Amino acid sequence: MTIGPSTPVHRRLRAGIVGGGRGSFIGSIHRIAAEMDGRARVVAGAMSSVPEVARESAEAWFLERSYASFEAMARSEGGRDDGIDFVILAIPNCLHYPVAKAFLSAGIHVMCDKPLAVTLAQAEELARDVESGSLLFGVTYTYVGYPAVREARTLVQAGTLGELRRVNVEYFQDWLMEPIERTGNKQAAWRTDPAQAGPSCCVGDIGTHAENLLSFITGRSIRSLSADLSTFVPGRQLDDDANILLRLDGGAKGTLMCSQIACGEANRLSIRLYGSKAGLEWHQQEPNTLLVKPAGEPWQYRQTGQRYMSEAARAVTRTPAGHPEGYLEAFANIYRGFTEDVVRVTCGLEPVHDYPGVEDGVRGLQFVERVLASAGAGGTWVELP
Amino acid sequence: MTIGPSTPVHRRLRAGIVGGGRGSFIGSIHRIAAEMDGRARVVAGAMSSVPEVARESAEAWFLERSYASFEAMARSEGGRDDGIDFVILAIPNCLHYPVAKAFLSAGIHVMCDKPLAVTLAQAEELARDVESGSLLFGVTYTYVGYPAVREARTLVQAGTLGELRRVNVEYFQDWLMEPIERTGNKQAAWRTDPAQAGPSCCVGDIGTHAENLLSFITGRSIRSLSADLSTFVPGRQLDDDANILLRLDGGAKGTLMCSQIACGEANRLSIRLYGSKAGLEWHQQEPNTLLVKPAGEPWQYRQTGQRYMSEAARAVTRTPAGHPEGYLEAFANIYRGFTEDVVRVTCGLEPVHDYPGVEDGVRGLQFVERVLASAGAGGTWVELP
Amino acid sequence: MTIGPSTPVHRRLRAGIVGGGRGSFIGSIHRIAAEMDGRARVVAGAMSSVPEVARESAEAWFLERSYASFEAMARSEGGRDDGIDFVILAIPNCLHYPVAKAFLSAGIHVMCDKPLAVTLAQAEELARDVESGSLLFGVTYTYVGYPAVREARTLVQAGTLGELRRVNVEYFQDWLMEPIERTGNKQAAWRTDPAQAGPSCCVGDIGTHAENLLSFITGRSIRSLSADLSTFVPGRQLDDDANILLRLDGGAKGTLMCSQIACGEANRLSIRLYGSKAGLEWHQQEPNTLLVKPAGEPWQYRQTGQRYMSEAARAVTRTPAGHPEGYLEAFANIYRGFTEDVVRVTCGLEPVHDYPGVEDGVRGLQFVERVLASAGAGGTWVELP
Amino acid sequence: MTIGPSTPVHRRLRAGIVGGGRGSFIGSIHRIAAEMDGRARVVAGAMSSVPEVARESAEAWFLERSYASFEAMARSEGGRDDGIDFVILAIPNCLHYPVAKAFLSAGIHVMCDKPLAVTLAQAEELARDVESGSLLFGVTYTYVGYPAVREARTLVQAGTLGELRRVNVEYFQDWLMEPIERTGNKQAAWRTDPAQAGPSCCVGDIGTHAENLLSFITGRSIRSLSADLSTFVPGRQLDDDANILLRLDGGAKGTLMCSQIACGEANRLSIRLYGSKAGLEWHQQEPNTLLVKPAGEPWQYRQTGQRYMSEAARAVTRTPAGHPEGYLEAFANIYRGFTEDVVRVTCGLEPVHDYPGVEDGVRGLQFVERVLASAGAGGTWVELP
Repeated sequence: MTIGPSTPVHRRLRAGIVGGGRGSFIGSIHRIAAEMDGRARVVAGAMSSVPEVARESAEAWFLERSYASFEAMARSEGGRDDGIDFVILAIPNCLHYPVAKAFLSAGIHVMCDKPLAVTLAQAEELARDVESGSLLFGVTYTYVGYPAVREARTLVQAGTLGELRRVNVEYFQDWLMEPIERTGNKQAAWRTDPAQAGPSCCVGDIGTHAENLLSFITGRSIRSLSADLSTFVPGRQLDDDANILLRLDGGAKGTLMCSQIACGEANRLSIRLYGSKAGLEWHQQEPNTLLVKPAGEPWQYRQTGQRYMSEAARAVTRTPAGHPEGYLEAFANIYRGFTEDVVRVTCGLEPVHDYPGVEDGVRGLQFVERVLASAGAGGTWVELP
Repeated sequence: MTIGPSTPVHRRLRAGIVGGGRGSFIGSIHRIAAEMDGRARVVAGAMSSVPEVARESAEAWFLERSYASFEAMARSEGGRDDGIDFVILAIPNCLHYPVAKAFLSAGIHVMCDKPLAVTLAQAEELARDVESGSLLFGVTYTYVGYPAVREARTLVQAGTLGELRRVNVEYFQDWLMEPIERTGNKQAAWRTDPAQAGPSCCVGDIGTHAENLLSFITGRSIRSLSADLSTFVPGRQLDDDANILLRLDGGAKGTLMCSQIACGEANRLSIRLYGSKAGLEWHQQEPNTLLVKPAGEPWQYRQTGQRYMSEAARAVTRTPAGHPEGYLEAFANIYRGFTEDVVRVTCGLEPVHDYPGVEDGVRGLQFVERVLASAGAGGTWVELP
Repeated sequence: MTIGPSTPVHRRLRAGIVGGGRGSFIGSIHRIAAEMDGRARVVAGAMSSVPEVARESAEAWFLERSYASFEAMARSEGGRDDGIDFVILAIPNCLHYPVAKAFLSAGIHVMCDKPLAVTLAQAEELARDVESGSLLFGVTYTYVGYPAVREARTLVQAGTLGELRRVNVEYFQDWLMEPIERTGNKQAAWRTDPAQAGPSCCVGDIGTHAENLLSFITGRSIRSLSADLSTFVPGRQLDDDANILLRLDGGAKGTLMCSQIACGEANRLSIRLYGSKAGLEWHQQEPNTLLVKPAGEPWQYRQTGQRYMSEAARAVTRTPAGHPEGYLEAFANIYRGFTEDVVRVTCGLEPVHDYPGVEDGVRGLQFVERVLASAGAGGTWVELP
Repeated sequence: MTIGPSTPVHRRLRAGIVGGGRGSFIGSIHRIAAEMDGRARVVAGAMSSVPEVARESAEAWFLERSYASFEAMARSEGGRDDGIDFVILAIPNCLHYPVAKAFLSAGIHVMCDKPLAVTLAQAEELARDVESGSLLFGVTYTYVGYPAVREARTLVQAGTLGELRRVNVEYFQDWLMEPIERTGNKQAAWRTDPAQAGPSCCVGDIGTHAENLLSFITGRSIRSLSADLSTFVPGRQLDDDANILLRLDGGAKGTLMCSQIACGEANRLSIRLYGSKAGLEWHQQEPNTLLVKPAGEPWQYRQTGQRYMSEAARAVTRTPAGHPEGYLEAFANIYRGFTEDVVRVTCGLEPVHDYPGVEDGVRGLQFVERVLASAGAGGTWVELP
């Protein structure tokens, strides 16, 4: 007995990937995340600009179609009846803009790594393209995929925190504490190279994650900021550390800190919110717990998978409480929202946009630009749009 | 350009599943785990004994072939050129034996849920079948798939702990603290029914996980035990709680505790080992950390993904340090070892058996049987084979 | 201006100490604890059987009166108008009985270290003496002095846990993991010597603390037990490790574990209780937090010093929340209850006995005796009185 | 037998207290801390400006001498042969200056609460008085009394961290999140009143603790800062929250945050340091652990009381590892250093100044002044002297 007609709801979606070839960390992360729920399969790719690497990487993934360039891929897939439904961009920042343009032009939905582009102008142009067309565009701000982060947002929306007063978000790593860009580490090489990464390393790479997490949970934008940017590793061209004072719409104040030279920290992203009725605390490295601190009452330890969690949190949970969900599941939740939208629009339905989109990408670039402006002016307070 | 000839190394493995239909928790867990690394796809299934459920479940998973019975599936798949390479058993304990027999007879490798069978006799017969044949047989003792557990085993093997003295392993849940088997919970219904689960609920379902974790890390077997078994929920036929004293080969002593009525505990599996040179501690609910406690020195906090971790731990890690890996990744690691062996034997190579096998399944049943024997005799110390 | 007449409420109590001289760990602990609230001062002592040590130790403490023997001290202090109100026994187990007898005979209240005596018979005789007289007798089961432990007891008494089902109490140390009794450690020497410590080392020294903590919080007695006792350090005469199965009055079951060879553990005393409505968890090494786990709700993190804590907990708290209270404050809380009773009885009021007394001491010895009996009989279940 | 001649080494020191009467939190904290090691006794006091409260408070403490005013006390005690050796100031900030002056003039050593004074000018004058005289002056920056903080300083001094790059210190409370100064809370009333507290509430009260902790551990001064000060509770005259960017001597950068409106936080003081070789982390609410994070190695969990701790940490530890030491013991360690110096100078020896002194007090006021200057100028970077 054989199953499965060909309308999108009755078949798996077909995905393609640009980048992610041998030696890439993020490529297989994208593949696992995109395929986890069985709603999509990566079937085509232009996985490297080095032809042999592209071919071997595609073989290792059992891809059906391998291309030598993203242009060839966009052209070919856009014209096939069984072409890909969406493309994944797992490439250095400087390529986001041209590659996204190519696939949008070919009529293919795009899931793009963050930051959205190298310059704000590029990001804004992509946003105009997306807004004026009918294609979907996702940006993989992974960390908002965690169930506990969804719970946090739900609690804020429900007014549990009261008036928001203080926010503290931070993202500390140590992988760039030595000049490994000069000793063969490819990841480090492009991220510390202005030509490939754009005008910021640390703020662009992880500060934007922190900004997005803050914005996602609180629903508030940064109104103004004052930044102190540093480069601690001698000879490095871009920043590797930042301390930023924040003022949010609505009156809350706080800090955003990010560092890639914080010795001993692997990937310490955390957020604390303090309101007039309750506080909240979440740590990405123990992602299944959300601390809630109601005024005058014991702290609550809310755990992913428990029945008391909100519908929004439970909707992105795959296992019962006590079976830890991790980074890959959070990443897959971004893809889950995106692929559900792809199915919706293919069926003529309205998308619901339950994942970070091009507007988040633009806001990220605005943030980076203003941080650089403030730091360049000796820490002057700078307004955001 | 098209890729991919048909020898196993050059194609994805094909998997089938028995059970796991709509309403099953463990079915999609198996699928995600089996497919995560892109080395296998579930293509066929007999997902329910209710025909409509079987069909709809298969459609939801986009399976190529759906069967109304496991017998039909075994027969058909065993005879196809493009038949499945291995089958996944995601069914109540009482079905493990007949279904495993059917697929082994059809020449198909088997990955079976734990416990291996309802009786020790069944388990031993399966073991004889496997040992006398050339087919692979895995048992999904998931928790030994965690990188930190591999690290723990490596440290023990390297002698870091010195002479092992005390062991404490425990597995606490609370999901059976009310008689939910009488209010429509299917998972609870079969697990508390002797006809479907066998002679034990708590010890069979989770005590065996604890036993396996202990055995995996220490490399030691339980030599004798004294058990106190309880049923706290009135009207329940099987045990829901146990306290067991242990003596291991080589002289260590300790405890194994398991409970499904431990109010507030979701899935608290943990192990502590104390040797003459160091101690070890690991908690499944924070799986990316392994505490090592060398005599007279500060505790070490070993984290999954760090470069100082052993080769054995790094081999089953997919993300950099600080990107939490969870239960699904641990489960996928069991499948990774298994599918690599399937490829090996298909290519005529020797398997390496880096996953729990039929002998672990037999030992689990021996453990359950001896626990019941001891408890039945008022806690008498009972020897294991 | 001078303050202070001479009735006990208007003056500080006068305490004496036997033992605690130079080299003793517990002596100064007793002094700090007894004096912390300013209600008592140690003014006299027989601090060592070595005259020079006794004299120098008394000088170092600025004692008003130093004695060469406890007999001389009891006689002299019992006869003075400004004699001590109570005596502190900070001496090896084997001396508790004769010294306590001497001071009781001299009409002086007694605060005794645990275990109460070397044999159950001695303990019972002391209990008879106390019960037939009018003197107060405290036993320093320190750990029940913590505010969070008082909170735990209050919650149990209020029925928060529902029907108690499972209890797990454990006390792990590692200070005896090497044979330090043979290399000059005085503390280790007497504790591992049957002549001075009695028939048990580990169970007598720390198992009794665990038993007391369990009994204090739950209000339940151990009805029967099955014990596995070990001596891991070669050449040692007494036990250094024990695993004990418990059944409590009222139906709960569980374990009590204690060890002095648990490598890496300093003083890991913890208790977990699981009832039909909620669970509880407390760890002595993070004593200001009590975890409460109501069925189906988030865990609560109850913190010492918060206003939501019970009256019983707040009554023994000296600092606001977030100012950690430790072992010395817990110890001082035992003395606070005791000295308040000394003042009461001196004023002709009834004592309230809000501290461990001679009956706790007797129960501790019963526990030790039954553990030894069970272990000696191969783990047979043994009833307690 | 009677003990004890009258030279200071052979007698207890005599202390007096100004303030700390009924209703004061900090009064009994000072008494317990000053007396804990048995080297000093509080014997005299001017405990309240309300005569009846002063008298009753002195009786409750069994003081030998009670005074109606600090002036009378300074005069009288300065003239007695058995007068107090030192005085404790447990009074609102605005009284520190006049009371300290009075006792210094009377030839009596002073232990003063922080901040040292209301204005920098007052603080500098006190510093000149102390430097030009021969009297000792301590300031109770309590938190540097913890053994783990001493360990942290020792590790920094030993070069364990390498070149210091990033520092983050924070102190969060929530006790002022409602306007309790208007509903009868005396502590809140004076701290939020410029006339009694000086020009800052939050920064003066707890920001100075954070500054002192940072300076103590790193041995580095703040070179410049940029501050954002807030008052979140409507109607309050002084700040209740601050976010401050820091640059330290030697090149490290970072943040100092303090808040008294951080809902759910009791007394969350913590510090993190990141150097080129290792990181450090310490949390006051779990004070017995120091996390050390050497580059490329597992984190170390250093525990107070362990033999591997430095001499500096062990010198201020009273109990074995695993017996938690808390806030009172930290406070007592400040007094221990101070009273040892009192004995030294009384015997004609040089003091060693192992406790915060008047220079720490001055630096605290400089810090407060510069924070106010920066915040008043819209966050301009301001240099420190």
